[in-house]
Amino acid sequence: MATTLTVHLSERSYPIHFGSDLSAEVRAFVGELTSVGRKFAVITDANLQASQGGALRAMFGEAAPMLTLEPGEETKCLEQFGRVLDFLAQHRLDRTSVLFAVGGGVVGDLCGFAASAYQRGIDFVQVPTTLLSMVDSSVGGKTGINLKAGKNLVGAFHQPRAVFIATGLLATLPPREFAAGMAEVIKYGLLGDAALFARLEKHTLTVASPELAETVRRCCEIKAKVVEADERELAKEGGRALLNLGHTFGHAIEQVTGYGTYLHGEAVAVGMCAAARLSQRLGYLTEAEVARVDAVVVAHGLPARLREPLAYADLHAAMARDKKVRAGTLRFVVLKSLGEAATQGGIDPAPVEASFRAVGAV
Amino acid sequence: MATTLTVHLSERSYPIHFGSDLSAEVRAFVGELTSVGRKFAVITDANLQASQGGALRAMFGEAAPMLTLEPGEETKCLEQFGRVLDFLAQHRLDRTSVLFAVGGGVVGDLCGFAASAYQRGIDFVQVPTTLLSMVDSSVGGKTGINLKAGKNLVGAFHQPRAVFIATGLLATLPPREFAAGMAEVIKYGLLGDAALFARLEKHTLTVASPELAETVRRCCEIKAKVVEADERELAKEGGRALLNLGHTFGHAIEQVTGYGTYLHGEAVAVGMCAAARLSQRLGYLTEAEVARVDAVVVAHGLPARLREPLAYADLHAAMARDKKVRAGTLRFVVLKSLGEAATQGGIDPAPVEASFRAVGAV
Repeated sequence: MATTLTVHLSERSYPIHFGSDLSAEVRAFVGELTSVGRKFAVITDANLQASQGGALRAMFGEAAPMLTLEPGEETKCLEQFGRVLDFLAQHRLDRTSVLFAVGGGVVGDLCGFAASAYQRGIDFVQVPTTLLSMVDSSVGGKTGINLKAGKNLVGAFHQPRAVFIATGLLATLPPREFAAGMAEVIKYGLLGDAALFARLEKHTLTVASPELAETVRRCCEIKAKVVEADERELAKEGGRALLNLGHTFGHAIEQVTGYGTYLHGEAVAVGMCAAARLSQRLGYLTEAEVARVDAVVVAHGLPARLREPLAYADLHAAMARDKKVRAGTLRFVVLKSLGEAATQGGIDPAPVEASFRAVGAV
Repeated sequence: MATTLTVHLSERSYPIHFGSDLSAEVRAFVGELTSVGRKFAVITDANLQASQGGALRAMFGEAAPMLTLEPGEETKCLEQFGRVLDFLAQHRLDRTSVLFAVGGGVVGDLCGFAASAYQRGIDFVQVPTTLLSMVDSSVGGKTGINLKAGKNLVGAFHQPRAVFIATGLLATLPPREFAAGMAEVIKYGLLGDAALFARLEKHTLTVASPELAETVRRCCEIKAKVVEADERELAKEGGRALLNLGHTFGHAIEQVTGYGTYLHGEAVAVGMCAAARLSQRLGYLTEAEVARVDAVVVAHGLPARLREPLAYADLHAAMARDKKVRAGTLRFVVLKSLGEAATQGGIDPAPVEASFRAVGAV
């Protein structure tokens, strides 16, 4: 049965619909658009086209304008951004048209940015099909692409008009992708819900877990609250930056290894283990608590340390280019306890380096 | 002596500074940024670098990170957008950094879009150096680039943090470019200031006219009022769309001839003459008033009709792709009188075609 959660952002408010199968709901939404003369287009990726072609047809019919992109982080680039825009122009979408992003974070981030820029902004709808995008990138309006110099360096804040989260689509998700999404689920527990973290410690969450849908909804609730309080990440302390727990370390890993070697969630998993160590060095966590973070990460099929050693000099250079750097100083999200995060600036380089070395940097 | 006009857009409000030479003011602004650790970069074009190198150094010093683009409409493309973004990343600009766009509309539109997208939005400052950009594109926050399918199809609303309009920079502007800017000046008279239009009828404005600075300021005032009332062009009637007087016709001319054959202002000049004829056919203007529009256009060195015949079928197809098309119907800005414009939808194809043919379409 479908349930709905509203993200409250005044005139940019939107509903997130949850259910196992939301084909009928998406189809009805599309029908309402076309009944008033609004055009739409669908962007998806080749993996989804292959594994969920039936669901795509059930949602959008046989004749929908649909562009199928190559899966993978490399697709989040300027060239594919241009390809999506050309596709929209070719199908003569106008200012009243709607773009549907059906896929994981790559499709959602790229299409959201394209929707923000096409004709200076058209509506878009997220239909996330990976655990990662369901609990993270499909909610909150951060869209963007990568540059050679770094991940998500270019983009826009552009809230979707609606999000449809059909957890039944996860049935065909490869286990490694499911695990990568779990990194963000664990993150929500660590940064704001000790009870969620405790449940994950007690019962490893799988695609077959009866509590999966409820857990996804809980993650979206936490994210929605954070986004509602700090939509454009302008809070000087805390706020939306808290969602970056593990991400400064994680982005550096992705950048040094080349996008795709580590899945985003895998890099964030190692990053959270590093962030836990940094939190310990700053006096917030005990060694036992750091071990609990590692254990939950490993139980969910994620790496708690680098698979191969990486040079700290390279990781450091990547962190220095991270967009969360403010006017030259390194800021990190640290854990005050398991279930409470905070931003902290002016951190000495030594504990950062030591924490990264503790998870495998050399 | 420098004077200032404020564009009131609540937290996005910004000053427009007017003067003959504003080097000292820009230099002081840059000094304030760097004194608090904020980085900056400058984007300009090769023409300006050649003709106003001294002014650039006076504003930004010798060592400023500066990227020089090729002049011309072709520069407003996705590839150069990427080049600007890579330049910002290479110089490690962060979220607190500021981008200066020093040039005409091409540089301003491209850089404004790049500033809107880099790290999901950094501050930018407009230093327009052409008459066209001084009275039009540097004010109002519309930024963007072209696609093959059409002009300005991609972009963002991103208000500058400040605009510096130094009319002394126009001394080295080629006469054809000055004339192109006059198209927009005439437009402001036609759409909202009968007295301005009458002054232009009486005295042709030149780069040497004593009233030049005052006229530029008057145009910015009119534009600011329109933008303040309808920042994102959401008004159902009137509002910001009024600034597009002559532009639906003009964009079609630019697109069919290939960008650069007609300067933007030249295409808009022909477009305004076509719009005047459409207004006559709809019963608003007299034949004598249409002739007055033509006369002012010609007196300022602009074409009142197409230089070479263009096929109406091609122009029509281009208009049908224009982003001002709403859910399939053609909307135009028409003149209710000389000095008052209005938007009008549901216009029959016949008078549109006849008006375009009257200025040289075949």
